[in-house]
Parts: sequence; structure tokens; C-alpha cells
Amino acid sequence: MDVRAYIEANAAGFLADLKEWLAIPSISGNPAHDADVRRSAAWLAGHLNEIGFPTVEVWETPGPPAVFAEWPAADPAAPAVLVYGHHDVQPVEPIEEWDTDPFAPVERGDRLIGRGASDDKGQVLFHSLGLRAALAASGATAPPLTVKLLIEGEEESGSPGLPDLLRHNADRLACDVIVISDTTMWAADVPSMCTGMRGLTEVELSLYGPDTDLHSGSFGGAVPNPLHAMASMLAGLHDDAGRVTLPGFYDDVVPLTEEERRLFAKLPFDEEEWLRTAGNSRAAYGEQGFSTLERVWARPTAEVNGMWGGHTGPGGKTIVPAAAHAKISFRLVAGQDPAKVQRSFQDYVDANTPPGIRAEVTLGAGGFRACFSPIGSPAVRAARRAMERAFGTEVLFTREGGSGPEADLAEILDAPLVFVAVGLDSDRIHAPNEKVEVPLLLKGAESAAYLWEELATALR
Amino acid sequence: MDVRAYIEANAAGFLADLKEWLAIPSISGNPAHDADVRRSAAWLAGHLNEIGFPTVEVWETPGPPAVFAEWPAADPAAPAVLVYGHHDVQPVEPIEEWDTDPFAPVERGDRLIGRGASDDKGQVLFHSLGLRAALAASGATAPPLTVKLLIEGEEESGSPGLPDLLRHNADRLACDVIVISDTTMWAADVPSMCTGMRGLTEVELSLYGPDTDLHSGSFGGAVPNPLHAMASMLAGLHDDAGRVTLPGFYDDVVPLTEEERRLFAKLPFDEEEWLRTAGNSRAAYGEQGFSTLERVWARPTAEVNGMWGGHTGPGGKTIVPAAAHAKISFRLVAGQDPAKVQRSFQDYVDANTPPGIRAEVTLGAGGFRACFSPIGSPAVRAARRAMERAFGTEVLFTREGGSGPEADLAEILDAPLVFVAVGLDSDRIHAPNEKVEVPLLLKGAESAAYLWEELATALR
Repeated sequence: MDVRAYIEANAAGFLADLKEWLAIPSISGNPAHDADVRRSAAWLAGHLNEIGFPTVEVWETPGPPAVFAEWPAADPAAPAVLVYGHHDVQPVEPIEEWDTDPFAPVERGDRLIGRGASDDKGQVLFHSLGLRAALAASGATAPPLTVKLLIEGEEESGSPGLPDLLRHNADRLACDVIVISDTTMWAADVPSMCTGMRGLTEVELSLYGPDTDLHSGSFGGAVPNPLHAMASMLAGLHDDAGRVTLPGFYDDVVPLTEEERRLFAKLPFDEEEWLRTAGNSRAAYGEQGFSTLERVWARPTAEVNGMWGGHTGPGGKTIVPAAAHAKISFRLVAGQDPAKVQRSFQDYVDANTPPGIRAEVTLGAGGFRACFSPIGSPAVRAARRAMERAFGTEVLFTREGGSGPEADLAEILDAPLVFVAVGLDSDRIHAPNEKVEVPLLLKGAESAAYLWEELATALR
Repeated sequence: MDVRAYIEANAAGFLADLKEWLAIPSISGNPAHDADVRRSAAWLAGHLNEIGFPTVEVWETPGPPAVFAEWPAADPAAPAVLVYGHHDVQPVEPIEEWDTDPFAPVERGDRLIGRGASDDKGQVLFHSLGLRAALAASGATAPPLTVKLLIEGEEESGSPGLPDLLRHNADRLACDVIVISDTTMWAADVPSMCTGMRGLTEVELSLYGPDTDLHSGSFGGAVPNPLHAMASMLAGLHDDAGRVTLPGFYDDVVPLTEEERRLFAKLPFDEEEWLRTAGNSRAAYGEQGFSTLERVWARPTAEVNGMWGGHTGPGGKTIVPAAAHAKISFRLVAGQDPAKVQRSFQDYVDANTPPGIRAEVTLGAGGFRACFSPIGSPAVRAARRAMERAFGTEVLFTREGGSGPEADLAEILDAPLVFVAVGLDSDRIHAPNEKVEVPLLLKGAESAAYLWEELATALR
């Protein structure tokens, strides 16, 4: 029985298992659901035991528990792969916007509806089906390389304990490549692989003028106004070409290759439609010389997220305010060091604070480095082949503009990332009526089934 | 008996009267004191009757009542002067910071302490003593020109009813010059006259981008951010020389004369001390080519009073915000039309709103025109001579950076303003422990006594 036949034969059982797991409301962000998150970990551990993983452990953390499992290759010299995912889910509010009970998963045509169906229980569980299919098809009793799983329980709460968990268990988690199954494809009929996520670092700037708000009649026009200074400093963060002006900001940026740009350009991108999803934005705008997708996926940004100062209530109040504040975040791309960007912002502030204004920069905690998988790397090429075999068509490349704990995985475990995932942007993750396309989940299982042999060959 | 002797002889009675009036808590901003404001009007009307004004009327308004009085000159062809002041007072909070009961006025050395002592009851009442002194010294039974008084009861509440009151009673109030006794001198030993107040007009600017806040990972760097646009538009309101960039902003400005600049420069101005009063501002800053006093008194400004948008709470929120807002006010000087400045701001916004951003300008109501008394005008020269006779020294010129109803008086009654006042910036008006310097009040009375003959001569 080949991989595809095995998956078809076992699809109903796979869905029944998934529905059982989805029924557990493992909302890590709500302490009232602590026991549910633990039940979710126990359910997964039981399932992995059942399908034959020789080692399955529930790892306690200061927060919700993670599940670790390992299925060693027959050959102790074979490479090891770590699959990362999470078993916790987002809250379900606003509950009144759900058409069904978020924790009573239902199938509607090709769709399975329920919280966690796409993010991330469905995508974790296709690895179980994929591995069983691979073993069934090859007749082997062990995968061609050692397969490890780390399925954490607090990703939806920002993975605060993950770096420590990784560091404390680095030996157990040691691997040659990390497979991430927690992202999306371009479209159901345009399979693609994510090859990077942007990093993130945050700062807050406060500017102080007079000790108290001043009467603008008595003093206006003769003392510096912190709001004017703030406007100038924030306006100066970008030049006319939409480039960030921080000294050295682009120095370490790994540029897009011509090959990547060519493959991005092959994606059937409808900018009008994209603008609609961007809250009906009226125009695309960004760094000159780059397409919208390049801007979002592969170029760093400086974004003012909030700004306030002076009188912000109803009516007028003619003051020179005492202070102005702004929150600014930087999306980073491969090569950029969050700490260096923060230092550069501090330098910019030092150089641009006008006389009479006192500036205070508060650096946000750590932030995320960007993560990046070069499309020519052996692991990415192997994973792409696996997906192309499953989907029967060319697999394109995308990136994610957002940021997550993936960079921690790559950095702490010192292994490259590959993204094998079949979610869609239309899956409504983090929103009411989350769903997953069942045919895509099964293609995910098929991709995962081929992945082990492709990786084993590539990494040999 | 000459004017000075009369005033000395009647100083004790004058102070007793003033203390009686100050004991009435005529706080127009607090409805609980409505009856007190009416008592205050009645007290003044009774006092003016008592000292011989042939006509005394309490004028009802939709708000607190005003007091009108008229003492016609013997010669029906003589010019008329209107004295403007107010009998309402500021609230007294924070009451715990008063060393004495604000409505139980007490003398401490040369000072009389109590709410309204300087602003404005003391300065209204010195006209009563001055007029009596002038009549006693000349032996006449009527002043040399017709003296009218309009003492309103809601100045501390923004004089909302004053324009209508002036329009409805324009015939009764008709005059050749308006005397304002509600400002300050440079210092007790540097008598001065105010010759102008700045005008004011306000606008609010809202900039809209996406319909809702967007995730800055998914969209940041590829759609316009309203906070960036706001920073640029506000930063662009001033050029590097500190000049306002609105088209035509300076076109109608009446420039300072060399004589005015020379007289301003004679004032003993200590910039370090001034910066301390400016909330310990760390530096003076403003339009290049002008001194601090010129900037505050005689140059127009654009001041951002408040600005807000995006995430302003604790912690970070990585969004491209849907909107940004700012409140901006303009201090105006003689010649500038508030409505024209508002139109110019609208033009600036239209010309500088970047693609993808929708701008909405809300124009503030009316605002104030600046008021201005050229130092070479006959009325100002006459009033200056009167003050110089009283003080025995050169009277210098100042202006006020703030804005008030005085421009309405000049415009509606179509008469020039002169400012004869003896308050000090250290009188703590609007603050706890308001006081007035009694010797200055008596100099005010003496100035007022000379004023009528000086004006009668000048206006003949």
C-alpha cells in the first residue's frame, strides 16, 4: 500500500482523532483553562504512544506543559529531525460570532470547523498520519532518520518559557533540521513554503519639555514643544524613498536573491484584493524599489504603533505640553540583530533631540530575530520535493511578515528551519469560525510521509 | 486738594469698600455661586450710585449680569470713554493651598490678599477712587468727557455672552476709546502699558488609514501609517527657522516697529528667570530673528496642543493604526484673520496628505482676533502720560501673549483700546493666595484720575 492509499484509507480515523483533540479547550491564555491545556498534552502523549513512538514525555515548564516524543532511526548514525508545533489554542471571544461551538468540531463539506483546526492541532496531527503512512509504505519499523517532536503548550501566550525549555533540553532536542508546521500556503491551488519570518524589536520614546503643561498664550512660540520635537523625530525615521534612516539599519540585511524575487513574482498576487484585506487601505506604500510582497516579507521596517501627548480629550486646551510619547517597533529581516537596532535608535535619538528637550528611550525586552531558510539549502530543497510529490505541482516560496519563536528554535538548537505547512490565510485563525481544509491536511500528511526519506537522502 | 492728596486721604475708605466687595464669592464658573455673582453686581451698582454716577443699571444676560454706568460730561459734544472690567472671579481650588480664607480679604503689609484682589475687582474699583479724585481736584461736578463703565460677570467663564451684549447695546456703549483695566505691568518698579494681545484660532486634524488597526507583521511597511503621515504633516508646520509654513500665514501680520522693538528691549528681561517660570524649560526656542518677548507678544505661532493615535496603553502592540489625531492652535497677531488662517491650514492639509491617507479637518469655533493699540496713537499717548504723571517715571510698553474678549470690544464697538492696569505677574491670579499691591492700586487710581483730562485733551 503506497503512501497516498494509506492516507485515504485512514483519513476517517485521522479526522476522528483530531476532533477528539479539538474538543479539549486548551486555551493557554486563560488560567481557567489550565487543566484543559494539561488534558490536551496528555491526549497528545497518549496518541503518540498509541501510534508507536518509543519515547513520549510530558515536559513540565513554569507554564503549560509541552509534549516531547522521539522515534529513533534504525541507524544510530542517521540524522535527526525535530518537528515543532503547539497544542494550545487562542481564546474564542467574541463567542457570539461563532456559527458553531468552537470546541464541538464539525465537518462542513471539505472543511473541519473548530478552534485549533488549523492553528495548530490539525497541522501537528498530520505528522502522525504521515509518519504512519511512510512506515506502512516502506514496511520499515522505524523512520529513515530519527524523528523528534516538540509540541509546546504556550505558543498562543508568546512562548515565554520556550527559550529556557530549549536550553535545558538541548541534548534531547539536538537535531540536524527543524520542521515547522504552523504557517500557511499561498492558496489551496498554489502550494508554497514559507522560507522566513521577520524579527521584531520594540522601543518607546518619551520627550520632555517644561515640567508642567504651559499656557500657550504666555509661552507658546518661545519654548520648545515636545510634540513638535516628537513629530520631527518620527517624521525623520524615514526618508523620501520610504527607507529607514537609522544609522547602519540596512548594513546587516541579507538581500533578496534574484531567484527569490523571481519566485515571489510568480505568485498570483492581486494587490487590489490584498488592499481590501489590509483594512481597505487606499494605497500601497513602502520602501521604493520593492514590491508589496517583498516589503512585507523580506524588508525591515520602522513602524510607529502609538503616539500621544498633551491634551487628547474633547474640546480645546491651548497648552505647550510637558511631554510626548511614542511606541515604535521594527520588523527585522535575516542578518539584523535586535539589540543593534535598538542601539541605533538610541543613537538616532541622541543625535536628533533638539535643545531644550530631554529624551528617554525605553528598550523593549529582547524581541525576536528574523528566521530565514535559504531556498537553495538541502533541507529546503528536500522539503520542497516532498511537497511537490504530494501536491503534484510546483511549490513556490513565500515568507511571513510576522514574528514568532521559530528564530529561538534555530538559534538555540543551532539547526536550520524548514516550513512544511498547509494552513491558508482564509483559515480564520485567532478569529471566530476557525476552519481547516481537510484535503489540504491530508496533503500535509502526504508531504510529511515523503519528507523523511527526502530529508534522509538530502542530509546523508 | 490735589489728586494725590485726595487719594491718600481716601485710601482707607477705598480699601474698606474693596474688602466688602471681595468678600462676595462671585465665582461665575460655579453655578452654586450664581446668587453670589448677582450680589456682586448689586454691590457694585450700589457703590457706583453712591459715588454719584447719574446712570447705573444691572444688565441681565443669559448668564451672570453685567453692570453698566454712565456719567455724562457737561459738554454733550465731549468724547466718550468706556471702561471695561469684570466683577466675577476664578474658582479657589485647591482651597488647601490658600494661607487665608480667599473670601475674607486681609492686608499683610502693602498687600491685600483675597480672590479677585488683582483680577479684577481691585482694578475695577480704582476707577471709582480715581474719578472721585479727579472731580475733587478740579472742583467740577462732571468729568471732562463722558465716562461709561461696563463691568461684566462672566469673563472668567470665557465671556460667552459678551459679543451679543455688546451688539444689543452698541448705542448705549458707543465711545471713542475703550479703557481696559485687567492686565499687568512689567514690574512694580517698571510701570508699563500693554499694547496688544494675541488672537487665537484652533483646528483639529484626523488622519485615517486602514479601517481597523492592522497587524504590523502582516502589513507593516507596505501600507501608509497614519501616525507617520501625522508626524510628517506636523513636523512640516515649521521650517528650520521656526517659521510657520502655512501658505500666506505672515502676509497680513502687522510687523513690529523699530520703536516698539527698542522699547521692548529696554525692559529688564532675565531670560534664565523667565525659563524658570516657563515650567523650568531648558532653552528658549522660536522664530529666528526675534527675542523671546517679541516671540511671545508679537509673533504668531502654530502650536500642537495634543496628539494621539494607535496603542497608547502599557506594553507593546505591534499595529499599523487606523487613525491619528492632533489638536493645533494658532496664536495670531494684529492683522491676521482667524478664518483665513483656518482656511490656510485646510489648504496645507490638502496639499500634504499622502496617498492612501484620508484627512479630516475640524475647524474650531470663531476664535479671537488679536487686539493691538499702536503706541503712537493719541489714546495710548494720553494714557501713557496719565500713568507717567502717577508713577513719576517712564512708562514702557509690553504686550500679552494670551487672548481674550478685548478684541471683541474693539471690533464690535469700533473703538481703539488702551490698557491702563497695575496688576503684576506675581499677583497669583487664577491661583491660591491671589494678592494685589495696595500702593500700585493707588497709583492706578491716580493714573485713572489723570486719564480723563489727558484723554479729553488728546481726543478733542
